[in-house]
Amino acid sequence: MGVSPNEIGIDWEGLYSERARGMRASEIRELLKVAKQEGVISLAGGFPDPTFFPSEHIREVTDYVLKTYGKEALQYGVTEGLKQLRELLVERMRKEGADVSLDNLIITTASQQGLDLVAKVFINPGDTVLVESPSYLGALQAFNAFQAKFVDIRINKDGIDVNILEDEIKRLRREGIKPKFVYIVPNFHNPTGVTLSEERRKDIIEISERYQIPIIEDDPYGEVRFEGKKLPSLITMDISHVIALRTFSKILSPGLRLGWIVGDPQAIRKIVIAKQAADLCSPSITQFIVYEFLKRGYLEPYLETVRREYKKKRDVMLESMKKYFPEEVKWTKPEGGLFVWACCPKSINTEELFYEAIEEKVAFVVGVAFYPHRNIHNCLRLNFSLPSVEQIEEGIKRLGKLLKKKIKT
Amino acid sequence: MGVSPNEIGIDWEGLYSERARGMRASEIRELLKVAKQEGVISLAGGFPDPTFFPSEHIREVTDYVLKTYGKEALQYGVTEGLKQLRELLVERMRKEGADVSLDNLIITTASQQGLDLVAKVFINPGDTVLVESPSYLGALQAFNAFQAKFVDIRINKDGIDVNILEDEIKRLRREGIKPKFVYIVPNFHNPTGVTLSEERRKDIIEISERYQIPIIEDDPYGEVRFEGKKLPSLITMDISHVIALRTFSKILSPGLRLGWIVGDPQAIRKIVIAKQAADLCSPSITQFIVYEFLKRGYLEPYLETVRREYKKKRDVMLESMKKYFPEEVKWTKPEGGLFVWACCPKSINTEELFYEAIEEKVAFVVGVAFYPHRNIHNCLRLNFSLPSVEQIEEGIKRLGKLLKKKIKT
Repeated sequence: MGVSPNEIGIDWEGLYSERARGMRASEIRELLKVAKQEGVISLAGGFPDPTFFPSEHIREVTDYVLKTYGKEALQYGVTEGLKQLRELLVERMRKEGADVSLDNLIITTASQQGLDLVAKVFINPGDTVLVESPSYLGALQAFNAFQAKFVDIRINKDGIDVNILEDEIKRLRREGIKPKFVYIVPNFHNPTGVTLSEERRKDIIEISERYQIPIIEDDPYGEVRFEGKKLPSLITMDISHVIALRTFSKILSPGLRLGWIVGDPQAIRKIVIAKQAADLCSPSITQFIVYEFLKRGYLEPYLETVRREYKKKRDVMLESMKKYFPEEVKWTKPEGGLFVWACCPKSINTEELFYEAIEEKVAFVVGVAFYPHRNIHNCLRLNFSLPSVEQIEEGIKRLGKLLKKKIKT
Repeated sequence: MGVSPNEIGIDWEGLYSERARGMRASEIRELLKVAKQEGVISLAGGFPDPTFFPSEHIREVTDYVLKTYGKEALQYGVTEGLKQLRELLVERMRKEGADVSLDNLIITTASQQGLDLVAKVFINPGDTVLVESPSYLGALQAFNAFQAKFVDIRINKDGIDVNILEDEIKRLRREGIKPKFVYIVPNFHNPTGVTLSEERRKDIIEISERYQIPIIEDDPYGEVRFEGKKLPSLITMDISHVIALRTFSKILSPGLRLGWIVGDPQAIRKIVIAKQAADLCSPSITQFIVYEFLKRGYLEPYLETVRREYKKKRDVMLESMKKYFPEEVKWTKPEGGLFVWACCPKSINTEELFYEAIEEKVAFVVGVAFYPHRNIHNCLRLNFSLPSVEQIEEGIKRLGKLLKKKIKT
């Protein structure tokens, strides 16, 4: 004994909120540390390729911004975001077919903040949210931080299964439960790379209207389409039932941490109030940089580079998989985005496979991380945006060899 | 009826979380809109003076950053923040006397995010937090967004009344309530401008240790001291019981939106996980800018300018108040920071006074906004950092004239 409380220090665990007790460090984050070992080819992560960043254009506009708007760019801004940037984004969304004005749009500190604010505004502890199975890990974390209960709906090559979605809504209704929203990544979905078909988009809007359940449409990759027809965003199909999250992370630079939310003015107003308590406003300087970058028309040429280069990488990944993977493994053929999703025979647990793969100097993300109920163990996510084409081919070769060995035994 | 639900649209109000229902737009925000009227001299707000922003130095380092570290500055960073910036901040905190290492420190998207994360990690709905009365509005909003219950402790010229603080803790204890933390702005407090005395700092640390209640020490203004002895930060007095929030908003630029939290490694780890779900990481580009700015030694000369220029403004404000305010009004004499606090006789309601002041073309912030229970109506906050010396003198003259008229009648 003889130890006074001040020598022991605070029992921090004992002070945490219920929600904080349920927060877990990202699995990916821990795996990425392992994947960083010397000589390991990482097909994990989800970073854009910095080789193509438009650094010189950003340098040019940043210098102009600091020379021209220095005082405003270094000052507080309004919570909704820089007006001239919001105007450009409204224009952009209108071109896409969304009937929006300034009241429909708020700038966020990238899409992860969009997810955090949506969760903060809508989710009570124990509230049910409908998510794809598998689903984007960052969204699961953001919703989990507000103690959501997840009902996950199977995804297949055309996106979320709308029949199961409606059945689940009906089942929940019989139990007296009204889900707060359906969370969807419609284009080149993370982690599967799958795109929601046009028919299913219509079905989902109908379901949303019929049951009065809003859709959270998270679309970071929509503009990174390599081929095929661009499909209408859900937000353009019914702005009164959809809240859309967009980001500059995959179409310009994640280091700028800027995104935007589009939705019903009433919901946006509440999100503005929530953002005010969360960070007052997003950085003025980065908002000015992006505004100038867009105004000078630098985004389209950069997007063309991204589409061209990522397509090459995707092609190499798919060709290599065809060449080196055992036929028992199945995978998706994404028309854009950053990821391919592969599923092995059920006998293979990719959490175990991960450590064997590290031995063979190749890394991926274990599929289980994307399932809220952690009940699927035979899939894995492969990233093709960051590694070079040489690394992709060699990495897939190593992984294919390991998979063939595992499946034979 | 004949109106289908999809024509009506979603009942957003009905979907909000309990916490969102309790969120209110900032009163200051609404008042500031009124204060922006043509010809109104605003002594409201809390912005630094952009005239003195080190725009040229920032331009120089930003260009260097984009030329030299473009790929990293535009890429995702780790949630804890840019390592080299964290190292500089650790060094800075050590010079101040805080026994810290990298594990004690995380970068945030300015202090408002620090408040949001602290609230997220500690506050369950209905949890009690102890705050100063009056207290920083942004903190009240951040804690309110997580449904905190406030117990507010009177502040006087030496800061929070420690006897009342201890009595309240004892009273709560008898009711079986353990407050989650005590929230303190120790230096040139917002809104009052008051500084916590050295003796009371010791008392508060003792109370924190005795009752095992952590202190959240929010210190945005500590380095903006015009005169008098620098007092030790609470975090340097007992790092195991204090979580310190710091920001670059008042010492460099609020438009960069960067701050940091220092505390026990266990609490910091949980805050890192909460931040990951909130925005993944703060912008890499602004972290690199601040890193280079600090490394080149540009902060100290800027701080010298700020101290010198704000001191001039404070002097003009205090002299003008002495000259123009009726003797029935009492006010604080801050040794630093951005604000003076004035209290009128109880017969004057400053919410009513505000609109009369706008008629006279001068604006302030109504005191009631800073009281969680909205029970004090005769005080007001005056800002001297943003207006020019001429505006300060003229604004105080207008306000003084109005106050004299009000007090006579």
